[in-house]
Amino acid sequence: MRDLVIIGSGPAGLSAAVYAKRAKLDVVVIEKAGYSGGQIVSTEQVDNYLGLPETDGFTLGSKFREHADMLETEFIDAEVTKIEEINDTEGKKAYRIILNAGESVETKTIIAATGASHRKLGAAGEEELTGTGVSYCATCDGAFFKKKVTAVVGGGDVALEDAIYLSALCEKVYLIHRRDEFRAAVNIQQKVKETPNIEILPFYEIKEIKGDNKVSSIKLVQNKTGEEKELEVSGVFVAVGMKPVTDIFKDYVELDKTGYIKAGEDCKTSSEGIFAAGDIRTKPLRQVVTAVADGATAVQSVERYLNGR
Amino acid sequence: MRDLVIIGSGPAGLSAAVYAKRAKLDVVVIEKAGYSGGQIVSTEQVDNYLGLPETDGFTLGSKFREHADMLETEFIDAEVTKIEEINDTEGKKAYRIILNAGESVETKTIIAATGASHRKLGAAGEEELTGTGVSYCATCDGAFFKKKVTAVVGGGDVALEDAIYLSALCEKVYLIHRRDEFRAAVNIQQKVKETPNIEILPFYEIKEIKGDNKVSSIKLVQNKTGEEKELEVSGVFVAVGMKPVTDIFKDYVELDKTGYIKAGEDCKTSSEGIFAAGDIRTKPLRQVVTAVADGATAVQSVERYLNGR
Repeated sequence: MRDLVIIGSGPAGLSAAVYAKRAKLDVVVIEKAGYSGGQIVSTEQVDNYLGLPETDGFTLGSKFREHADMLETEFIDAEVTKIEEINDTEGKKAYRIILNAGESVETKTIIAATGASHRKLGAAGEEELTGTGVSYCATCDGAFFKKKVTAVVGGGDVALEDAIYLSALCEKVYLIHRRDEFRAAVNIQQKVKETPNIEILPFYEIKEIKGDNKVSSIKLVQNKTGEEKELEVSGVFVAVGMKPVTDIFKDYVELDKTGYIKAGEDCKTSSEGIFAAGDIRTKPLRQVVTAVADGATAVQSVERYLNGR
Repeated sequence: MRDLVIIGSGPAGLSAAVYAKRAKLDVVVIEKAGYSGGQIVSTEQVDNYLGLPETDGFTLGSKFREHADMLETEFIDAEVTKIEEINDTEGKKAYRIILNAGESVETKTIIAATGASHRKLGAAGEEELTGTGVSYCATCDGAFFKKKVTAVVGGGDVALEDAIYLSALCEKVYLIHRRDEFRAAVNIQQKVKETPNIEILPFYEIKEIKGDNKVSSIKLVQNKTGEEKELEVSGVFVAVGMKPVTDIFKDYVELDKTGYIKAGEDCKTSSEGIFAAGDIRTKPLRQVVTAVADGATAVQSVERYLNGR
């Protein structure tokens, strides 16, 4: 019976591993991807993790993993297929984690750190150009597009905030939305309309993102008339929502209406013994550093729970 | 009129600076200490900031500052003596920050990042041996005392949790408290009493911490009988409370009963336009990385406030 199983090896999971090892917990990290670092691995440059400026995502992920390795963290390369609630020998609540290889791990606590993935447009060229012009995070990558022309896709708060954020950096920002109404808050919509270098393109969808190793243009289609046009842009920011990876947890913990695990800053979920860290939980800002902070705080909550258990 | 003034140049303030510069805000950081990095600068080793293992506090503080410098962050070396609420030319709420040199800076928003300082024992040798055996953070420094004998001073949750934390790492832990009753939660007290390698020394106070460049022993006095004794220890963990640095803010923002600025994970205070980041705010875990995360989240809240202002 382990003290703690961490599911996921992105920034939140690796930070939790470092804190757990330093606290001498009997801990193991389950890594599905075959590599550590989570989403950042596919990011061309990360420049906002304090103390490690101008790092590419792959290097940052590797540094994070090295830190966990220095503390002799144990990793299992496997996918979790199911979690079962069990009792330990003292009759106390515990969990059995079933792996795709058929093996299982028993543990007193779990940190859910499987993250969230950005919803894709499904446009031609999108996948190939991700990290070289196609981005899913304006706060992360906006600074690389200073004085360039960019496009933002989406109609919610994040899309419109991204457009405003980018308008301060970029020469021009196209805001592309498949409808003419926005889900974003009214004051944000107002701000977008008042910003001279944001051009709203309602009823448009991206059919193709073009470029040779980096984005050079987008091909749009007007979804009412079928009219097509091409725009020269250096960057495409896709903000059509996130999809938290919660399938294995959803029988045990409450989710909010957008699918994130309900958990505050202390990372406690509705289920005793299960904690949520990083992008997977309800939180105001999903960034590398806020995920790393969650890893630390989640382990403190785990320790307190184990001490009172 | 600035968009943002960040008061304090510890991990929270420097992270906020990086996020603010990347968001193209007109920002300045006011630094009182004469050096950047805050509390960590006096920490011998920081091993829990993911990606930068086995760094000394001074180096980590310098790396943080370099990151802000790479983005051409403007710093003012001064102490803030007073904050005044003013109106900008459009009649909107703003602030005037008065500096000790007599100058002042006007700004639409403020991030309070002045941190908190650990309360000292006032024992002889305490100051000289801080960072070389005397520590104010078991989570930060405990791992450097593996299989050693240590002492924890205090009677609250933090002191007793520190003793439990250290008992898993250290050969033995003395828990020194000036009374025989503890303020800590009952279940934590129970756990302390059940832990065989924690020895509780009630009614004792530390008179002197001895050592030549590193802690070797402590001289105790029993405060009822006046009896004195000396114990060999390698580390002394002082957990007698923190003192948040809030004097210049307290006329504007609500504090909790222990003196921290009331602010959730989004760093919003009770006062529009003033945000609190890092150790200064109410939060579950005060660590370098949770302060750095706050810097990021606070800037997001600043941007949203400026956009809706």
